[in-house]
Amino acid sequence: MSHAAVRKIINDPVYGFITIDHPLVYKILSHPWYQRLRRIHQMALAQLVYPGAIHTRFHHSLGAYHLMCNALQELRSKGVSISAEEEVGAKIAILLHDAGHGPYSHALENVLVEGVHHETISLLIMRSLNQALEGRLDPAIAIFTNNYPKPYLHQLISGQLDVDRMDYLSRDSFFTGVSEGVIAYDRILKMLTVHNNHLMIEEKGIYSIEKFLVARRLMYWQVYLHKTVLSAEKMLVKIMQRAKALVARGCPVPAASPMLQFFLQSTLPQEPLHEHLDQFCALDDYDVLTSVKNWMAHEDKILSVLSRSLIERRLFKVRFQTEPFTREDVLHARNMVCEQIRITEEEADYFVLEGEAQNTTYDPRDERINILFKDGQVKDISQVDNALIHRNLSSPVKKYYICYMEC
Amino acid sequence: MSHAAVRKIINDPVYGFITIDHPLVYKILSHPWYQRLRRIHQMALAQLVYPGAIHTRFHHSLGAYHLMCNALQELRSKGVSISAEEEVGAKIAILLHDAGHGPYSHALENVLVEGVHHETISLLIMRSLNQALEGRLDPAIAIFTNNYPKPYLHQLISGQLDVDRMDYLSRDSFFTGVSEGVIAYDRILKMLTVHNNHLMIEEKGIYSIEKFLVARRLMYWQVYLHKTVLSAEKMLVKIMQRAKALVARGCPVPAASPMLQFFLQSTLPQEPLHEHLDQFCALDDYDVLTSVKNWMAHEDKILSVLSRSLIERRLFKVRFQTEPFTREDVLHARNMVCEQIRITEEEADYFVLEGEAQNTTYDPRDERINILFKDGQVKDISQVDNALIHRNLSSPVKKYYICYMEC
Amino acid sequence: MSHAAVRKIINDPVYGFITIDHPLVYKILSHPWYQRLRRIHQMALAQLVYPGAIHTRFHHSLGAYHLMCNALQELRSKGVSISAEEEVGAKIAILLHDAGHGPYSHALENVLVEGVHHETISLLIMRSLNQALEGRLDPAIAIFTNNYPKPYLHQLISGQLDVDRMDYLSRDSFFTGVSEGVIAYDRILKMLTVHNNHLMIEEKGIYSIEKFLVARRLMYWQVYLHKTVLSAEKMLVKIMQRAKALVARGCPVPAASPMLQFFLQSTLPQEPLHEHLDQFCALDDYDVLTSVKNWMAHEDKILSVLSRSLIERRLFKVRFQTEPFTREDVLHARNMVCEQIRITEEEADYFVLEGEAQNTTYDPRDERINILFKDGQVKDISQVDNALIHRNLSSPVKKYYICYMEC
Amino acid sequence: MSHAAVRKIINDPVYGFITIDHPLVYKILSHPWYQRLRRIHQMALAQLVYPGAIHTRFHHSLGAYHLMCNALQELRSKGVSISAEEEVGAKIAILLHDAGHGPYSHALENVLVEGVHHETISLLIMRSLNQALEGRLDPAIAIFTNNYPKPYLHQLISGQLDVDRMDYLSRDSFFTGVSEGVIAYDRILKMLTVHNNHLMIEEKGIYSIEKFLVARRLMYWQVYLHKTVLSAEKMLVKIMQRAKALVARGCPVPAASPMLQFFLQSTLPQEPLHEHLDQFCALDDYDVLTSVKNWMAHEDKILSVLSRSLIERRLFKVRFQTEPFTREDVLHARNMVCEQIRITEEEADYFVLEGEAQNTTYDPRDERINILFKDGQVKDISQVDNALIHRNLSSPVKKYYICYMEC
Repeated sequence: MSHAAVRKIINDPVYGFITIDHPLVYKILSHPWYQRLRRIHQMALAQLVYPGAIHTRFHHSLGAYHLMCNALQELRSKGVSISAEEEVGAKIAILLHDAGHGPYSHALENVLVEGVHHETISLLIMRSLNQALEGRLDPAIAIFTNNYPKPYLHQLISGQLDVDRMDYLSRDSFFTGVSEGVIAYDRILKMLTVHNNHLMIEEKGIYSIEKFLVARRLMYWQVYLHKTVLSAEKMLVKIMQRAKALVARGCPVPAASPMLQFFLQSTLPQEPLHEHLDQFCALDDYDVLTSVKNWMAHEDKILSVLSRSLIERRLFKVRFQTEPFTREDVLHARNMVCEQIRITEEEADYFVLEGEAQNTTYDPRDERINILFKDGQVKDISQVDNALIHRNLSSPVKKYYICYMEC
Repeated sequence: MSHAAVRKIINDPVYGFITIDHPLVYKILSHPWYQRLRRIHQMALAQLVYPGAIHTRFHHSLGAYHLMCNALQELRSKGVSISAEEEVGAKIAILLHDAGHGPYSHALENVLVEGVHHETISLLIMRSLNQALEGRLDPAIAIFTNNYPKPYLHQLISGQLDVDRMDYLSRDSFFTGVSEGVIAYDRILKMLTVHNNHLMIEEKGIYSIEKFLVARRLMYWQVYLHKTVLSAEKMLVKIMQRAKALVARGCPVPAASPMLQFFLQSTLPQEPLHEHLDQFCALDDYDVLTSVKNWMAHEDKILSVLSRSLIERRLFKVRFQTEPFTREDVLHARNMVCEQIRITEEEADYFVLEGEAQNTTYDPRDERINILFKDGQVKDISQVDNALIHRNLSSPVKKYYICYMEC
Repeated sequence: MSHAAVRKIINDPVYGFITIDHPLVYKILSHPWYQRLRRIHQMALAQLVYPGAIHTRFHHSLGAYHLMCNALQELRSKGVSISAEEEVGAKIAILLHDAGHGPYSHALENVLVEGVHHETISLLIMRSLNQALEGRLDPAIAIFTNNYPKPYLHQLISGQLDVDRMDYLSRDSFFTGVSEGVIAYDRILKMLTVHNNHLMIEEKGIYSIEKFLVARRLMYWQVYLHKTVLSAEKMLVKIMQRAKALVARGCPVPAASPMLQFFLQSTLPQEPLHEHLDQFCALDDYDVLTSVKNWMAHEDKILSVLSRSLIERRLFKVRFQTEPFTREDVLHARNMVCEQIRITEEEADYFVLEGEAQNTTYDPRDERINILFKDGQVKDISQVDNALIHRNLSSPVKKYYICYMEC
Repeated sequence: MSHAAVRKIINDPVYGFITIDHPLVYKILSHPWYQRLRRIHQMALAQLVYPGAIHTRFHHSLGAYHLMCNALQELRSKGVSISAEEEVGAKIAILLHDAGHGPYSHALENVLVEGVHHETISLLIMRSLNQALEGRLDPAIAIFTNNYPKPYLHQLISGQLDVDRMDYLSRDSFFTGVSEGVIAYDRILKMLTVHNNHLMIEEKGIYSIEKFLVARRLMYWQVYLHKTVLSAEKMLVKIMQRAKALVARGCPVPAASPMLQFFLQSTLPQEPLHEHLDQFCALDDYDVLTSVKNWMAHEDKILSVLSRSLIERRLFKVRFQTEPFTREDVLHARNMVCEQIRITEEEADYFVLEGEAQNTTYDPRDERINILFKDGQVKDISQVDNALIHRNLSSPVKKYYICYMEC
């Protein structure tokens, strides 16, 4: 297939047009395992608060790919030498970085497939595709796993300033309509530079980076950790946990699809996931939500009450506070629920839950955002003169919450 | 509940913020039958071409409600007297105008529920809710059915310049990223006026209306009737038809949900739909797509091939032309398919189909867009001096197409 | 100076960032004759109706340059071979295409400098710069004057689909806030192609072109020929004519600058302009408007009344109609004015004027927009099936107007 | 004139449409003293760096008026009682808040009219108009001067969260194209509330306010105090100072207009400005820039060199640093200039200057932004839990600069 034969232009409301112009990239994009991402929402149940937030992992990955194209072009125009192979490698790595996400992404992570992080699965997927493609994904895998001799390529995929974050902040703020999360991705891309093989920001980009970090902080507290979103996602977790518990004790819980049925068996951790990659890659939000809809009529009261409440959007109440909730607070909520829907003390776990939400605005110990000054100095963004991003912001902000069904 | 108690502000990427400030409107919005629209995509399978086009009927109806709020406020500021009851009536009517849409909206209309138009079902739903609400939806129903003495209220819901069209053009162009479909809804709203109880456009709005009609024309040919979108939606129809045919001849076709199973029985037309409204209102895109995913492994070759092709996005090829396809063209395509996937002559109906797409830019006989001139004259938009919208545009443009599986 | 040394990034609210990365382009941009365009408004007095429309010829030319960069890149990616010299030539030609505009652009064209079109002056300027630059503008001049063997390069500068129009429509709609004038410049650029050395549009761009022509039609009637804009600009013409008439009869009319004083002498047409290019290139909107402000206190009543009215925005009334105004209409307006501000019959010419505004939506005889079909056919946009752009739109629409002072 | 008779809709690229619907507001808007603001750039010479930044004080004031309309409506919908008189008062006060700005706004403040702040002149203008309007501006003046019993009305005009700032940040970021300065004005307006007659922000608006302060911080350092902007504006100051110095010593410096000539006489401080309000209100950017253009040919070398450099955009070099420049640094620059353009030691003051730019991100001592919590508590934004806006940001950031002509 000739190069020109695969030139595809895809409309994107965020960036205008996204161009696919390499046959290998097109091959990956067309693979059923990539197409599956069309059926996994980027923001899980945030759509119950922000009705526009129904964009998918498919779209996000494409967007991150687009930013990668621009970032590489920008670096090249500044004299950084990047080979054609490295270019395709970085593009494929970003395209597949989220391929390992299961249904409802982060919301159900570690629930359906216990103890396996989505990036591990993304890597399994890349390796499996690589076998079929006779090693053509070797560079992509090396870059993804940070085993490539140019660390900045990995940093573009996973780092404080990677194109993953740039796209999800841009895209999530676009689709939610939370205009305050908008970042100047185009300006940040123009400020990228490479120094000693590491990704850095030019001095005059300092304010853009500050703005980026503040936008992210805002998106966390206003959107990602929004209490109603949290409530809905915790309900979904409780539903899946109940379904698995019932199955474990031999009670039939028909899932809407055989794939989901398979994963409701709790035997997974023992069996290696790579033997079930096909099944995993057939699973998406549709299997889960259709099952929940069916379970609205399940004979187990806990399962049916939770399912009905979620589908009809009667969500758990949530309270946030800066101190942990006392034992009395929790007991009070549990007693209320037990009384109102006549369940046992133990079953109250499904209707009352507490936890903590936390987010760190910027932690320089974790991974640095380096500013390259004109005189060759390199400083962390939190170390520049008059930094907005100060020491206090590097410790995580914790908010304690309690969620409970209110009848 | 006090009026103020229900003031809700919803983020909308298209309009910024949508305000809900009436308890009855809030009650409708919270009803499971309205919440169901969250699970029905506005543009069916257009997302296979425009990945951003995954917005829902829920969001569209909310948007149309928002434009209705603005339209009524604008008309009042011009001295049109509209009572509080009429205001709430018009708002609820637009909120529920699409409640009768089934899974995949237009794409499956008349396939799952044969012979019943979605507006008929919307009316059934309104009447059912009205009973539960003891007649509080009477004004909404009168306006929706055009039995209210102020025709302009109905025209705002269903007419050449209704808020339904204004929202879907705005929203669809926003989410697809087809910026050329953008219309100046805010200016059109400012140009609205009422004359003899009918909705009209002020003279200086002529160019905005021309632009609106041209934007719609473009959206039809570039998006709604895009050949790949058409192909995907026809495939979905064929899948559902095959499933129903198999069921009809006694072959088991397990649907992913009991609700869909119910509708796969072809006995419906005999039974009045209003007795099954509950079941209908439990059905959405999730039931259908999960079933299609399951059918990828069905033993019926036709069902499984079609299902696999759709899910993995290997879509029928489509050719458009201005003349009908000849019998030879069709036979050729059928023979190719028969040979390649070894099916009978008769079964080729599932893999080759022809039809016509048509759209009329503006038909003054159908429903007029009236321009009110400063001197009191009223003219149809196609009758004003130097009209862009001329006679030729009032006859439908037809394009003939053939779709066929290419192996 | 090295290539990299001139990499400049300029913020543009319309396109984001504009990049200058060639030393010759930077040299032109820095020249006082190009900098002068900062002081010439793109839309003359349209700002009296659209307060945002205060953008300049400087900004427009930069924007057109940006679109040229994108167009050339797009064509190259489609296999059109364009040399580095041609690239710089085309960029400089578009950068300078409006350099010959005098104060208030079109509004005063042929008033200050009689009988010389601004493109002629742009060419004089290019030639003068070319001399100083020892022939380095030869390719730019050949392209600008259509003497270059690749006509499509000239068509990008001056043709139905040139980057000049694409920028001014985009920029003018952006700054006026008339969102309906927005065109999909990015999609149109992606649809450009070259066939037989001529610029064409790919088949699937038809609707974008229709939309472009309709947007232009709207901008003409709603903005460029807006009656209040017309009124203000005609007043400015009358002011300059009066000043020149007074000077001609020996009455002192001090201009705010010696350059403008020079051009108020009406002897110009006899003297070749190229001998006064320096003076011309020192003239801008500031000289004219400051003079008008000063003339508010001039002892000539006609000059002072007109100047005061314009500056204080008490503009002539305008009436538009599709038939020419009758002699009676005009006489009536003249008599009113004569009476109210006590002027002679002859002097009424300064306060009452009639004329016609005209615009053609698309004239295929003038210059064609060619559509290149997949099968190699070429058709004019007005000849494609079901064209929106029909025969009637090719004759100019005329509106007759009368403007008069109302006291 | 009836109320409806003045309904005017003005296109604004920032907000869409601005509505004028009160005869008194319309009267103010039409007054020559308000129309003058059309000829005063909002951002002085920032356009030399950001070519889009050519918007005017006229447009800014209109925009702030628009936000005031929305703010008052929002507060009323929350139950704050605001009379019709107070509404018009607040609207007129904001419309005229900048009427006292002279040519080039802040850049020439205290240069042309020494020792008088523009707000003092705005008040003189309001009082003069109030006399002519027989006291109808009394409420506007009381609100403007904070002598009205509802302090929140004054705070909307002048306070940390006034509509003035909200508009200029929105408008300046829009026209410069610096998207990072965009603030969520619509959300901030929705978060406004009144408590004890003071303006506050609802708890859930905290992140929006943080974002607002960070956007402002960015705009200061990236745009308002941009070194090239600073350089250009300092050059303009030097030009005016030189002109005044020459006039003071009897050397003729013809200004382009008699109004500017009047203000070049340095006798002003002695004479009360209110006796010359008419002359002041006839002065604008055009008088100044046309004069500078004329002075390019002035016989005084200092005046002509400075004027030519500014007009042809050969600006002073600027260096910023966090420590004051040493005496040696300055001497070195002065000696260079003296040598190169052959001026005296003393005259070097016109070509070398040093100073400090400073900006405080948020100073809680100066004026507080109060957050009203759901439980009735009021806290300053810098006192809330996990505040981004910490103590360090309340002391001004200083940057020292040196500007000098480089030949």
